Amino acid sequence: MGKVGSKLLFEAVELFSGLPGIGKKSALRMALHVAAQDPSKTKKLSDLLSKITTELKVCKHCFLYADTDICDICASSARDTKTLCIVESIKDVLAIEETSQYNGKYHILGALISPIDGIGPDSLNLNSLADRIVSNGVTELIMAIRPSIEGDTTIYYISKLLTGQNVKISMIARGVSFGSELEFTDEITLGRSILSRTPYLIHENQLV
Amino acid sequence: MGKVGSKLLFEAVELFSGLPGIGKKSALRMALHVAAQDPSKTKKLSDLLSKITTELKVCKHCFLYADTDICDICASSARDTKTLCIVESIKDVLAIEETSQYNGKYHILGALISPIDGIGPDSLNLNSLADRIVSNGVTELIMAIRPSIEGDTTIYYISKLLTGQNVKISMIARGVSFGSELEFTDEITLGRSILSRTPYLIHENQLV
Repeated sequence: MGKVGSKLLFEAVELFSGLPGIGKKSALRMALHVAAQDPSKTKKLSDLLSKITTELKVCKHCFLYADTDICDICASSARDTKTLCIVESIKDVLAIEETSQYNGKYHILGALISPIDGIGPDSLNLNSLADRIVSNGVTELIMAIRPSIEGDTTIYYISKLLTGQNVKISMIARGVSFGSELEFTDEITLGRSILSRTPYLIHENQLV
Repeated sequence: MGKVGSKLLFEAVELFSGLPGIGKKSALRMALHVAAQDPSKTKKLSDLLSKITTELKVCKHCFLYADTDICDICASSARDTKTLCIVESIKDVLAIEETSQYNGKYHILGALISPIDGIGPDSLNLNSLADRIVSNGVTELIMAIRPSIEGDTTIYYISKLLTGQNVKISMIARGVSFGSELEFTDEITLGRSILSRTPYLIHENQLV
């Protein structure tokens, strides 16, 4: 697009096109939209983005985004503290919540172990996991990790890390197809995969 | 998506999904992206949006967005003042500039006459048009208006409005297919349609 008129507008196009999935044409439409709409709406978005940089927190327990030190799920007394669902990302938490099939707490790893990408266990939010298990009296750990080499490596690593702890480790049922992302799985499949989770066996009789 | 964790984040999802072409999933990806990225980048976007509400101007002559009272095209002495290209929207100016086939000035109508949508001539930026033609000594008016009922009505209205003025009215060649938008026309087609513009005849021998 020819960059004539307002430099301000084209800076906005530039910044919008840095957002995921936004091409130059979409970014231009977005910039023209914010320029044309009621200024109070644009100001609202501006203020909110500014607030995100200063006020958004990460839950000290589970690593979900929160407005306070402890997120609403971790703070909730209505949720089962003895079950902990291990997920890769925040999007996975949101997808599982959408199924309404789970009432325990979460632990967000932030990544999966992937030596080829230089992601070792140190890159994962694992430091506080053992402590959480002990202090909350967790009896079951549900691995809601996408079926993949990295996922399996991560599940294996965590199971070894927790050797000796009196906690049952289960995995979501392998109804989720190999290589796909949790956030794009339909909620029925994802919900069922939590309900029909299977025991995790490291050695003999290991399930695929 | 389950609204757990940060309210701030879901407000951002809400506001992003109000932007054109952005669905809930895209809005969530965008919100998570701005939350996760370097805060200085998010702050930059926030500041720019705020600036847009306070500093963005509309050119007094042509109605293009500008950072000053007069846009860079209207202020440019390198551009031909005697040719005025009439377009519906800012996006049309950007698309025509991209073709590098036009070196005159523009006049942005902001809309096309559409009685069915309640858009009459009063809704268009027409008040200053006759004055601009006189004061700039405009000899040719190029109607770069999308071929459509509304476009034809608008061209007809403007041509009647300027009856008696010594100005040639031409239209971009009808290479642009009926019903399509200028901004999505490839630049070769659009550029040629400006080069091979045809005289506008109101009465006998009127071109389709």
